[in-house]
Amino acid sequence: MSDFFKGIEPVRYQGPDSTDPLAFRFYDPDREVLGKRMEDQLRMAVCYWHSFCWPGGDPFGGQTFDRPWFGDAMKDAKLKADVAFELFDLLGAPFFTFHDRDIAPEGDSLAESNRNVREIADYFASKMETSKTRLLWGTANLFSNKRYMAGAATNPDPDVFAYAAGQVKNCLEVTKDLGGANYVLWGGREGYETLLNTDIKRELDQLGRFLSLVVEHKHKIGFDGTILIEPKPQEPTRHQYDFDVSAVFAFLQRYGLEKEVKVNIEVGHAVLAGHSFEDEICAAQAYGIFGSVDANRNDYQSGWDTDQFPNNVPELALAIYYILKGGGFATGGFNFDAKLRRQSLDPVDLVHGHAGGMDICARALLAAAAMLEDGSLASFVDDRYAGWETPEAKAMLSGKRSLADIAERVEREGLDPKPRSGRQEFLENLVNRFV
Amino acid sequence: MSDFFKGIEPVRYQGPDSTDPLAFRFYDPDREVLGKRMEDQLRMAVCYWHSFCWPGGDPFGGQTFDRPWFGDAMKDAKLKADVAFELFDLLGAPFFTFHDRDIAPEGDSLAESNRNVREIADYFASKMETSKTRLLWGTANLFSNKRYMAGAATNPDPDVFAYAAGQVKNCLEVTKDLGGANYVLWGGREGYETLLNTDIKRELDQLGRFLSLVVEHKHKIGFDGTILIEPKPQEPTRHQYDFDVSAVFAFLQRYGLEKEVKVNIEVGHAVLAGHSFEDEICAAQAYGIFGSVDANRNDYQSGWDTDQFPNNVPELALAIYYILKGGGFATGGFNFDAKLRRQSLDPVDLVHGHAGGMDICARALLAAAAMLEDGSLASFVDDRYAGWETPEAKAMLSGKRSLADIAERVEREGLDPKPRSGRQEFLENLVNRFV
Amino acid sequence: MSDFFKGIEPVRYQGPDSTDPLAFRFYDPDREVLGKRMEDQLRMAVCYWHSFCWPGGDPFGGQTFDRPWFGDAMKDAKLKADVAFELFDLLGAPFFTFHDRDIAPEGDSLAESNRNVREIADYFASKMETSKTRLLWGTANLFSNKRYMAGAATNPDPDVFAYAAGQVKNCLEVTKDLGGANYVLWGGREGYETLLNTDIKRELDQLGRFLSLVVEHKHKIGFDGTILIEPKPQEPTRHQYDFDVSAVFAFLQRYGLEKEVKVNIEVGHAVLAGHSFEDEICAAQAYGIFGSVDANRNDYQSGWDTDQFPNNVPELALAIYYILKGGGFATGGFNFDAKLRRQSLDPVDLVHGHAGGMDICARALLAAAAMLEDGSLASFVDDRYAGWETPEAKAMLSGKRSLADIAERVEREGLDPKPRSGRQEFLENLVNRFV
Amino acid sequence: MSDFFKGIEPVRYQGPDSTDPLAFRFYDPDREVLGKRMEDQLRMAVCYWHSFCWPGGDPFGGQTFDRPWFGDAMKDAKLKADVAFELFDLLGAPFFTFHDRDIAPEGDSLAESNRNVREIADYFASKMETSKTRLLWGTANLFSNKRYMAGAATNPDPDVFAYAAGQVKNCLEVTKDLGGANYVLWGGREGYETLLNTDIKRELDQLGRFLSLVVEHKHKIGFDGTILIEPKPQEPTRHQYDFDVSAVFAFLQRYGLEKEVKVNIEVGHAVLAGHSFEDEICAAQAYGIFGSVDANRNDYQSGWDTDQFPNNVPELALAIYYILKGGGFATGGFNFDAKLRRQSLDPVDLVHGHAGGMDICARALLAAAAMLEDGSLASFVDDRYAGWETPEAKAMLSGKRSLADIAERVEREGLDPKPRSGRQEFLENLVNRFV
Ligand SMILES: [Co+2]
Ligand SMILES: [Co+2]
Ligand SMILES: [Co+2]
Ligand SMILES: [Co+2]
Ligand SMILES: [Co+2]
Ligand SMILES: [Co+2]
Ligand SMILES: [Co+2]
Ligand SMILES: [Co+2]
Repeated sequence: MSDFFKGIEPVRYQGPDSTDPLAFRFYDPDREVLGKRMEDQLRMAVCYWHSFCWPGGDPFGGQTFDRPWFGDAMKDAKLKADVAFELFDLLGAPFFTFHDRDIAPEGDSLAESNRNVREIADYFASKMETSKTRLLWGTANLFSNKRYMAGAATNPDPDVFAYAAGQVKNCLEVTKDLGGANYVLWGGREGYETLLNTDIKRELDQLGRFLSLVVEHKHKIGFDGTILIEPKPQEPTRHQYDFDVSAVFAFLQRYGLEKEVKVNIEVGHAVLAGHSFEDEICAAQAYGIFGSVDANRNDYQSGWDTDQFPNNVPELALAIYYILKGGGFATGGFNFDAKLRRQSLDPVDLVHGHAGGMDICARALLAAAAMLEDGSLASFVDDRYAGWETPEAKAMLSGKRSLADIAERVEREGLDPKPRSGRQEFLENLVNRFV
Repeated sequence: MSDFFKGIEPVRYQGPDSTDPLAFRFYDPDREVLGKRMEDQLRMAVCYWHSFCWPGGDPFGGQTFDRPWFGDAMKDAKLKADVAFELFDLLGAPFFTFHDRDIAPEGDSLAESNRNVREIADYFASKMETSKTRLLWGTANLFSNKRYMAGAATNPDPDVFAYAAGQVKNCLEVTKDLGGANYVLWGGREGYETLLNTDIKRELDQLGRFLSLVVEHKHKIGFDGTILIEPKPQEPTRHQYDFDVSAVFAFLQRYGLEKEVKVNIEVGHAVLAGHSFEDEICAAQAYGIFGSVDANRNDYQSGWDTDQFPNNVPELALAIYYILKGGGFATGGFNFDAKLRRQSLDPVDLVHGHAGGMDICARALLAAAAMLEDGSLASFVDDRYAGWETPEAKAMLSGKRSLADIAERVEREGLDPKPRSGRQEFLENLVNRFV
Repeated sequence: MSDFFKGIEPVRYQGPDSTDPLAFRFYDPDREVLGKRMEDQLRMAVCYWHSFCWPGGDPFGGQTFDRPWFGDAMKDAKLKADVAFELFDLLGAPFFTFHDRDIAPEGDSLAESNRNVREIADYFASKMETSKTRLLWGTANLFSNKRYMAGAATNPDPDVFAYAAGQVKNCLEVTKDLGGANYVLWGGREGYETLLNTDIKRELDQLGRFLSLVVEHKHKIGFDGTILIEPKPQEPTRHQYDFDVSAVFAFLQRYGLEKEVKVNIEVGHAVLAGHSFEDEICAAQAYGIFGSVDANRNDYQSGWDTDQFPNNVPELALAIYYILKGGGFATGGFNFDAKLRRQSLDPVDLVHGHAGGMDICARALLAAAAMLEDGSLASFVDDRYAGWETPEAKAMLSGKRSLADIAERVEREGLDPKPRSGRQEFLENLVNRFV
Repeated sequence: MSDFFKGIEPVRYQGPDSTDPLAFRFYDPDREVLGKRMEDQLRMAVCYWHSFCWPGGDPFGGQTFDRPWFGDAMKDAKLKADVAFELFDLLGAPFFTFHDRDIAPEGDSLAESNRNVREIADYFASKMETSKTRLLWGTANLFSNKRYMAGAATNPDPDVFAYAAGQVKNCLEVTKDLGGANYVLWGGREGYETLLNTDIKRELDQLGRFLSLVVEHKHKIGFDGTILIEPKPQEPTRHQYDFDVSAVFAFLQRYGLEKEVKVNIEVGHAVLAGHSFEDEICAAQAYGIFGSVDANRNDYQSGWDTDQFPNNVPELALAIYYILKGGGFATGGFNFDAKLRRQSLDPVDLVHGHAGGMDICARALLAAAAMLEDGSLASFVDDRYAGWETPEAKAMLSGKRSLADIAERVEREGLDPKPRSGRQEFLENLVNRFV
């Protein structure tokens, strides 16, 4: 037991009226919501990178956080793991997530780096024997080291592609061995800074092949988690291939992977791509590739990825409503890809950030569940499209009518369809009854 | 001959030193550029809607333009056609483009509207006997009338779907009969204002079916032009399904249409979607769906579609470079989907706008052609990826190596790839030698 | 009594548990909040333009709303007034707002237009004898008519400046006579489309003089309301002089008007300028020019002014918190500068929009008041700056120390200040206890 | 002489037809342009921070550049200085710029840090005896060290204010001693991350006092350069007080400093604030506070400060046109606040970046000068406002007419002003004759 969180008690459910800043007011893990425990509906995860690795730097200033585990030795990595599991315990977090480079220092060779990762994974495994916290997903960091500055799979240098392959193989296997529910790829530098030195067609083919290699290996080793791609439009690259859900779906189909890979949608990345979070959730559901989410928020007035903890219930409730309506999570969950503000220096701030985020998700879940149980919203939508249930409408949609058939009918019947109110304000008010 | 452009002489090529504001300084239609006449490389078109239909209104004010043909009678439509062809002649424009509703007034029924369109199309045909101007593409306006307020193909009311089908059938046939090189669909209201009343999955299926109907009809009537979709992320809708090139490619593959349909990329729409024009061109080329372009520009400080005439040579030269590098236009061309500013009241302003736009395209074409002929830029890119020509690299890419094979080799050989300068500044300077 | 709202009952307070879509769940006008009636704290107003004049058009389509009063005759204007006051009554709205051109048709001359405005104002006056609804503010429409296409006060043509002056004089007097609490100027076209034809210096001087004329006339006629400027960064112009609160304050000081004029801050305009609503409120308060607000919301994914009804309680609660903390409204209030979505066709949609907006404001007011009464947030802030209460700190701030004095002390004392956590996550969680 | 740039020859003017990538094609320092040497018109500066201090990191990856001077010792700082002056010589750069922390390592106390800065400044002074390169401006880095994480002048801790004062005093004096033409303040963290812990009014007062201290000290020590503030809307803070030119002018007037301080306008910061570069230049000129510029460009598709070298001649030409039209630079100049892309690893890339940027500025200067000499653009603008030269118009503007006077005349004369074409497309074409 480290003394990092000394004096901080576990965060417990105390009910909506609690004024304890370190209590849950809504997150009551065992409470049943829509037939599942709240914990099992939300499947919330603490991420390793922001909470234990990020030093508080930004493009105009360096480290602000003092953490006793900052350093490059394996003992630092173990202390970090100790503190991480202490935070998981304080929060009662059912899941965590990591990059390989978050958990263990890079060695002098890939072989050594992989061994380091493996060693810490074993250390995790021993901790997980006494912890309730499971692994939501692992992922390989293919963007921090300068060898990846021009991409990993899409690098002009095939040795970088190979190096990345070697890194992913290890991380995927470690993820499997830790019982990870998913494996994530984020194309951090799979994109370009300038078209002037870039061959997009070639890079997409490289990326397609790389992803196929991963999928093939997953099957070979019998990993039964889901392979997820996390879309992001840009940053650090000027333009990333995995721009948004549609870009990923275009790519997956192009390379025959649309049945194999799903998406991990991050709130802030959706916003940077010009979408709302629920735009992306619904698009992924419509295309059958919804997998998991990175819960955070982006400052609407900032043009970069701010990765803040979520704090707006009405926004999140709507997103959760669509997730639940689509059947909820299978292997996915809510990963807090969220970091403290760099001025939030203290250990307790880590607890505030996560406890607040978890509680907001719980409150939003309750609101979303109430909206689903009420059913008015869904009924309204069904009624709006009810005209499509007529035989002639179905015939048009199923391919039994040609353009000429339809055109002829319109003229023959003198069709003159009249618009009907979309009732947006009514529906927005309806939602506000629940949030 | 109307007197609308009275006193304005045809715009002629006078060479780079001309100070005549109504002369071309670079657009010399017969000049050979990369083995084709300049006119045939650029295939520039005047659009009907902005130049002859738009009254100069914006969300905060109404009509500013006085045009003698504003009105709802067929004689107004004919005067409009007369003036349009006079402008085509003044400019020597090789192409034009139109929506059905631009050219003829809406009637009391679809049948009457279609007859009106047909009648004006016949009027066009007679004019085209003595004009050099051909039809680049036609398109149906499925967004202005309030029946389309909730979409056309994606409307919750199947009668609207049917009505749109009847309208497109007529417009597609008219386009064919006028010898159109392409037929365009822009999903103006195929999107949503709020998810609260929308079923995305259902609407996408409707849209897929609609597009299939159009493609089937194209083949049935033997139209050999290209069917094009014009991506736009939003406006007027909050979110449009044809968000960008990737969204269109995702959709086309989903509905099995990726061999049948290509994209018409508009500069301003690319910008609104968070891309540069050349980002979208190169993406479309990589995916094999590049078709045509709408040449204009968006004000970088405005968040809506400003549809201004292009005026920045370096930007346009780069775009044309990629178009040419990909083989240039097949059936596509440069359509000026560009409108006068609403304070540009006079007939001569229409000539200024188009003459300037055409000349900028010509100048950019010359710069792009010089870059291609020089070859330094393309060589740089090829050299950058040269490592991929080795047998082992090819084996990785072609599927002859598994993830485990590659990982094993990395560890065995102790691979440690070193980054190489991307030379972006050098390349930008290189481009500036030509623009 | 028109039959426009036939069958719709007045919206009444029914408490938080009501499921009646046309009831207030939180807006209880007589409930006391922080020592005032809720109605008097919020001072909510219905605007004339969006609700009674806008036909539902957007840049890609025309009218969708059918309103029996659409037309150019004075009888249409009177029917419009009848319906407007019927809506005010249904809602129990304490205030309304209008542009001169909203309420009466433009005549053949300014004199006739002014007479029309006066006649309808008299009609209002008679209605107000039996209505509880008062005038929050009037304003002159100096942007719709094409004479204003290049600005009103900033027009290159001094006759347009004069015309605008004549229009404002009449509207200001009418506002006074109707007991208006404020008079607003929005610089709709006081900006530029292109610098190429614009002399900013000259236009600012014109604008400064115009505003001074208005202020002088206000005093001359004894109008004791507040003169307000409404900032907006752009749209319809590419760049508007009244970009944001700071731009207005820069301008006011430059022309010696900072004691005479305050700002009317619109949520959506703040967002378009790259600010949050509360950024602008707090800036205005810090500079002493906070006046009133236009309550609405902008779609965060749209780059134009969407003018939607507010619907996010946490966001609005924070804004109201700062308004109340600064002392609340003097003459200002919450004007719903919000319009129905163009698909919301029906009379009842007008009621849904306003009732929902009003109820959201009420709910946000209750949350804000609770935050103020709790006091934790304000205490935290005071504590954070407590160091400035020491004599030496005060001496630095009051000008009793020179740069050299301070520098000397830093070196002498070896000052090495240590950072302290900013506790942002704690504070965000704290706020979520109230919203 | 270090060997960092070994093998790279000085960049020389070789004329427009040169294909040497390390030659100037337009920058010919002694060429006379509008009565001054080109060098004296442009006054271009190399900045220290991006070129010699930045390691190539971004938020997702660390150092990519290997520079022999990276380290914290004074000998590293001297090697850095040696290489810097070698680059200045290679380029023939007339100016350079620096932050105190760029040039010398931070010591254990402010006293030691200041001594380090002074020691390197002396080293500079000795180098400047044989170099042509002068100091355009110095500035203090008040944002990198974590003590400044919550602002410098606006910090809640008065000791941080004091510390910053001590740092600025030293840097201002060093700047004076090196003959600096200006002294710059950039409010990197003078803003806020959240309003929840911030008292804007108090922070603005602190900032006003701080700036006054600097201005008073400037006079006391007889520094005759210009004090400049560099606006930026955000990043790293969520919201910076020096948002844009108008925000700075609002602030300066509020604290009585508008005669003492001018602005240093950065291209990329203008864009992030929603303006074009020339919007900000013209605003500053209109308000009499134009001082200097930071020449760079922002990627239009990125929402953060990309600080790229300028490369678009038409854009830059227009900006320089307005600078020249306003009288050109007094003490200001063109500082390349521009950094290599992080993949541009090699010493020669530093030369490519700067040589390209300088040449683009030269080419833009020639275009701008030609536009001024031609005079058509300026004449058009003057003609457009010619109506304001009539006695009655002048009377309105000078305060000799009241609102009532003007209104009475409009009605009496039946004024009905007619709009006149703004000719934007004509003007844009005109500009394209020169760029
Ligand atoms: Co993120
Ligand atoms: Co993420
Ligand atoms: Co457009
Ligand atoms: Co278009
Ligand atoms: Co608005
Ligand atoms: Co408003
Ligand atoms: Co910058
Ligand atoms: Co700068």
